[in-house]
Amino acid sequence: MGGDHAPHEIVAGAVHAVRERGLSVVLVGSPRVLYEALADHDATKEVPIVRAEEALSMDEGALASLRRPRSSIAIACHLVRRGDAAAVVSAGSTAGIVATGKLRLKGQQGVLRPAIAVAIPTLPRPTLLIDAGANAEVKSEMLVQFAHLGTAYAELLYGIDEPRVALLTIGSEAEKGNKLVKRAHELLLTSPGLRFTGNVEGHDLLSGRADVITTDGFTGNVALKTMEGAVRYAFAELRDVVSESRLARLGAAMQRSRIRELRRRLDPEAYGGAVLLGLNGTVVIAHGSSRAGGISAACKLAAELSAGGIVSRIGERVAAPHRSHRLW
Amino acid sequence: MGGDHAPHEIVAGAVHAVRERGLSVVLVGSPRVLYEALADHDATKEVPIVRAEEALSMDEGALASLRRPRSSIAIACHLVRRGDAAAVVSAGSTAGIVATGKLRLKGQQGVLRPAIAVAIPTLPRPTLLIDAGANAEVKSEMLVQFAHLGTAYAELLYGIDEPRVALLTIGSEAEKGNKLVKRAHELLLTSPGLRFTGNVEGHDLLSGRADVITTDGFTGNVALKTMEGAVRYAFAELRDVVSESRLARLGAAMQRSRIRELRRRLDPEAYGGAVLLGLNGTVVIAHGSSRAGGISAACKLAAELSAGGIVSRIGERVAAPHRSHRLW
Repeated sequence: MGGDHAPHEIVAGAVHAVRERGLSVVLVGSPRVLYEALADHDATKEVPIVRAEEALSMDEGALASLRRPRSSIAIACHLVRRGDAAAVVSAGSTAGIVATGKLRLKGQQGVLRPAIAVAIPTLPRPTLLIDAGANAEVKSEMLVQFAHLGTAYAELLYGIDEPRVALLTIGSEAEKGNKLVKRAHELLLTSPGLRFTGNVEGHDLLSGRADVITTDGFTGNVALKTMEGAVRYAFAELRDVVSESRLARLGAAMQRSRIRELRRRLDPEAYGGAVLLGLNGTVVIAHGSSRAGGISAACKLAAELSAGGIVSRIGERVAAPHRSHRLW
Repeated sequence: MGGDHAPHEIVAGAVHAVRERGLSVVLVGSPRVLYEALADHDATKEVPIVRAEEALSMDEGALASLRRPRSSIAIACHLVRRGDAAAVVSAGSTAGIVATGKLRLKGQQGVLRPAIAVAIPTLPRPTLLIDAGANAEVKSEMLVQFAHLGTAYAELLYGIDEPRVALLTIGSEAEKGNKLVKRAHELLLTSPGLRFTGNVEGHDLLSGRADVITTDGFTGNVALKTMEGAVRYAFAELRDVVSESRLARLGAAMQRSRIRELRRRLDPEAYGGAVLLGLNGTVVIAHGSSRAGGISAACKLAAELSAGGIVSRIGERVAAPHRSHRLW
């Protein structure tokens, strides 16, 4: 029920995930609304519906999740908790999803704070930015744990062994940054199970210099939205420039398809959305503006993460330090 | 003497500023090196040189400025302090310039922290981002003052009356963000002399929704470098896509000049660099990678700011609150 283009694009994405990706998807929300949307695809028999009479609106945040125990996102989390679903996908309000996820699925044991990981489409493989917005206020220890969550994700989804972990700050030297990151830098240097390669700066989000970039949710969210805005801006300006002359239009026509491919790759939807890591269950947060393609990609991402056992992999990582303590 | 392409591009930019912009420029640094560079332009008679035997290297930061009282940047600040120059322009290490500027020119009375303002090339006129990196650790009151510094700059340089001031955070609602920005939001709502229009997010750096965006130097620096990196990345990807086919190359050839214009506008150098506001003198920090064009633009910016009396305008703004207090 969540997302700028709900329910039709969401349902279309679910149908695509079922038919083109062979996934099994359950829709949670208003049966009448969802049934009608499914009927448009002759998919009423292919995609089951679980009833949820309420839904969080896009402008509702954390508090609403407490007031709405029967919202579609709450029911979806409940299905995962009961083992009736492997993962949750939503294009609803991020604040609402994070709050509901924490409330209904609870943080994993040993996880200080669940965090949002977003895959930035660098080549040959994505760079994970974590935390992309779940925690505006953090401690240095949390930045180290975010690195563990991101490392587990990168190992599982991209098959990287020993992913390169970097710390987002304002200079490559160890002493650059604020108190939070300077302390985090020290902790990362001595953290077992992490391959810390040092500090990175804003321009490294797209440089591919790191596999996992750890940061607080405030900085991470500002950086991510800045990046998305800048890429969108560059393409929009380019379109204007190109349409200024007939010759250029001709040239543009030749390139249009390739440029569209490129824009798609840099489109936040295309890469499947953000993942809320550290909960007792997999929660994928699709871009609010997601259309069918983005929702289907988010379903694929959710299926891969849960099939790969992301929750238990994170559990082992956050437990590891405690075990090593007990040896003494 | 500072900058990736010093001394030749720096000197070439100074010569350009003198010949094409009618500015009078003094070069500070090694007389032998600068004389030779000037000779390449037959400009030894047009541009005077002030001797400075030392120079901060690009990798030297704040401490070096204390150890090097005779560095070219220190001497340049001294010229301004003595009234022998109206402003300083440097493409050297930002940390070194900020530290030396604070040390030699001192902060203006009433200014809590000097801050770096960068003009982001939105249309029809730029958006000022402040602080872009001078202060990694700030208090909410400082974010309000940064808004005053930026407002004075926007009024003077862009002739905007009542520039729209926005606060950079992670959601448009007042309660979004960390403690620092939530408190700053409250203060901005009741700050005389500022037209506060609310919160903005990362993608608004290029949306033109605000004339002045206030933020701490950590977030601001990460956002600025992320934006620059994303724009550079988009153009680089575009180049690759275009060069993949002969047809596309043909189309690209038609557009090359226009695309170059666009890239120039989005190029951090082209818009003249960053300004360190709040000191007893004007200090322009040109991009470290600046070539002649960027240096010349930085000289123009420095001349306009000092001619417009930016220092006294800021002085009046930061003094104003105190005056109003005295009324009670």
